[in-house]
Formats: sequence, structure tokens, C-alpha cells
Amino acid sequence: MSKPLILVTNDDGITAPGLKALVQVASKIGKVVVIAPDSPQSGMGHAITINSPIRIEKSEVFDDIEAHTCSGTPVDCVKVGIFHILKRKPDLIISGINHGSNAATNVIYSGTMSAAVEGAMENIPSIGFSLDDFAHEADFKPTQHYAKLIIDKALSNEFPTNVCLNVNVPKLPISKLKGMRVCRQANAFWEDRFDERIDPIGKKYYWLTGEFKDQEQAEDTDMATLKNGYVSIVPVQFDMTAHHAISQINKWKL
Amino acid sequence: MSKPLILVTNDDGITAPGLKALVQVASKIGKVVVIAPDSPQSGMGHAITINSPIRIEKSEVFDDIEAHTCSGTPVDCVKVGIFHILKRKPDLIISGINHGSNAATNVIYSGTMSAAVEGAMENIPSIGFSLDDFAHEADFKPTQHYAKLIIDKALSNEFPTNVCLNVNVPKLPISKLKGMRVCRQANAFWEDRFDERIDPIGKKYYWLTGEFKDQEQAEDTDMATLKNGYVSIVPVQFDMTAHHAISQINKWKL
Repeated sequence: MSKPLILVTNDDGITAPGLKALVQVASKIGKVVVIAPDSPQSGMGHAITINSPIRIEKSEVFDDIEAHTCSGTPVDCVKVGIFHILKRKPDLIISGINHGSNAATNVIYSGTMSAAVEGAMENIPSIGFSLDDFAHEADFKPTQHYAKLIIDKALSNEFPTNVCLNVNVPKLPISKLKGMRVCRQANAFWEDRFDERIDPIGKKYYWLTGEFKDQEQAEDTDMATLKNGYVSIVPVQFDMTAHHAISQINKWKL
Repeated sequence: MSKPLILVTNDDGITAPGLKALVQVASKIGKVVVIAPDSPQSGMGHAITINSPIRIEKSEVFDDIEAHTCSGTPVDCVKVGIFHILKRKPDLIISGINHGSNAATNVIYSGTMSAAVEGAMENIPSIGFSLDDFAHEADFKPTQHYAKLIIDKALSNEFPTNVCLNVNVPKLPISKLKGMRVCRQANAFWEDRFDERIDPIGKKYYWLTGEFKDQEQAEDTDMATLKNGYVSIVPVQFDMTAHHAISQINKWKL
């Protein structure tokens, strides 16, 4: 088999250390093309750019690896990659390594994971990788180790249809990591708060902040898996239908 | 029972005719507070504003109805509404009326629907309304009629836990509408294209465009329901776990 074509993107932008770490892994496995946002796009979820035009530029950030920046969101990067740069579907899309966890309901706010979900919508094997460490100087080596293992398995096995993977790695040295577990998205949420500040001309502005709260006691969630020292792998789909609720709504006799 | 507290938002912005139409419906049912984006936020999906501050202003757009603008996304509007303006959970969140359909996989790109999904994450009964007509001068009367019926049922019945509703209305006069159907999200997708243009200084830029393609033959989807002249109602959840794929990934022996 010829080398697989791997599209690499992220949401922290083209210069993020996590992207560099993922490109290092991917370039050992296949032919890599990078298409990443030209500025940080954290928390952009599944946003696309439709009210303004998109700029696409060649980037020389990576030696000997084709790279492009896109002025849009991570989902735009995937669309630009497939329909404009490559003009064909790659064999794999990988996104990350995100600086910060995308476990639990963070998957829905995450630009990293939305890029992978967009790949699933094109039925391309797609994986988002995140490390539970926001620091710029985070140690990506343990995540690189597991990313290589997971990508190799993904390319040598049948990938589920219209599904992508949400991989999260706890902030632990590799000697403390216990392995990998396939699990489900935890029902854990942000308790939001708006931090009020005053600008130099006396007007109020706000920062969205808060605390992440996990009330679930179950052991089969990604949050529990991470807490127990394992890498969590959640298969993610884009069918958002609450199939179980259809019969309940039908009882309303609309 | 005292009048229900209804938070109204949208993604087309505070001045959109669809928002006005929905506020008219809501104000007949309960006490209304509007928190809407200060500029159009179509296609923003579940984006939140974390890299820049948020501005919140009082708005006098609606006579005798409390209204605020938010510089952020539709999801930000919901968070601002619950945690800053109201400082409690409203009894109902409604979003729209969107100018354009949010059926099928559009739910995932839609700011209108992401506001409703955010409501579901707070376990507040939440409904997004969309009319399959992009025109500024679209006729919102048929949608208003059905929105009133659905909101009344939602407030007088048990609302499913952690679920919101995605309501889409076909572009038809009320005499041609056949009623409502609870259904599932169609597996239909955008075939994207990047439209290349040249700016005044000779540099390329691109508009994301394309065509929406529905290949499904099934009759139980929202796309089929709309095509058959019914209002579609899809219950939507935020658990994105592809539960059916867990056993398949486990066979990879990770």
C-alpha cells in the first residue's frame, strides 16, 4: 500500500506546539498536508465562515511539509483541505494536539473535535487528540506515543462509518499512564460565570469563565477514564437526533 | 400558574424580522426577555467567545419588552441570559425564527439550533424555529401559527430531559401546510465549493458555497417531512457518543 495521505489541522492555530507534535507523528506514517487556522480558534465549535470571505496562504512553518493557513475556523480548514487544496478526500484527518481537554460536553464547543466531526460527515477516518494541559510548554510526548498507536490501528482496521474519535490524554508522565479505554461522553458541564471588567473609557465588558463540574458517578465515561489514568477514546457521531424522545413528543398529540 | 419566563434569542441578530416574529408569539404566552447577537451570527454552530471579551448592551428595539444585545455568539447569548441577565433559569428558551432551514446536518452548523442545544445542556425546555426561506421579507405567519401550538404543548407537557426541539417549516402558505410530524435528522450534506475572487490589490480570496444534497430515500427524516408539506420536529440531544461503535473500536485491541 502506498503512503496514506493525512490532513492535519487544529484549533490553536498554525504555530501551536501541539500541532507541531502531531505533525511529527503523522510524518512518520504518511504524506502530510497541514491546513491550520492563521489565528487561535478555540471554542469555535462547528462554526463555518459564511458572512465573510476566507483567505488561504502557503506557510513555511514546517520544514519539507506542505502547509497552508486559513483565516477561518477549524471546520473551514477541513473543507478547504478537501475541496480546494487536495481536491480529493485524504485517507485520514487528524486534529490537535489540543492544549486542554475535550472530554465530556467540551466536544461540542471544541474546534479541534468539530474538525474531526466534519471529517466524519465526509466519511473520512478522523481523530481529534487533546492533552489535559493548557500550558504552552506542555509535554506532548506521551500523547505522541498514544497518537501513533491509535493512528496505526485506525489505518489497519475498518473505521466505523460516519464516526470520528475523540482522544483525550491525562496530564501524566508516560510511566504513569495505564493504557487506553474506549468509553462514552460524560454528562458533565461548565458552570458559567461572567467576569465583569471596566475598560479605560469606563464601559463594562465581560469574560466568559467558570468551573467544569462532573456529577456523574459512572465508571464508563471519558471523565472517569481520564481520572483513572487512562487515555480515553470516545467514538463520536453527528446524528444529534434524540431517538429515545420521539415517542414522548408524539404523546403531546401535536 | 404565573406567566412563564421566556428567553428569546436567534442567530440572525437583534434586528432580524424572524426574531420580531418570534417575540410576537412569545409575548402572548409569557414574560419575554430578548438576548440576541448585535450582528449576524449565522453558521456559528456551538461557538463560544473565549479569546475576546463580551459586550452586553440594553436594546430598545422592542416596545415594552426587555431586550439586550450581546457581541458574542448565540450560545454566548444563552449563557449571558441565564448567568448574567436573568440570574436564574428561564422556563423556556426559544431561538429563531431563522431565515433558512436548519433541517438535516444543518443542525450542527446552526447558531439558532446551538442556542437551543445550550438550553438543553442546562436542562431548560428549548426550541429552535426555522423557516425554509432565506428572504428578508419571508412570510413568518405560518411559522408563528405553528410556533404558538408547539410552545403551548411544550409548556403543558413533560419536556424530555437534556433534549431540545429542532422545528423547521416549509416555505408554503398556511393553507398548504398539512400539519406537524416528529421525525429524525436526515443524513444529508453540503457539497462544498470555494468560489475564488480577486481583491482590488490582486490577492485571492474565497467564499464558501455549495449545494445541499439529500440522498436518503427514507420517509421518516426531517427532509422528507418538509418535502411532503409538513412542519418537521426533531428532538435533539448533545450526547454525541456513537454508542453503536464502541464494540467495533474495542475489536481493534488498543
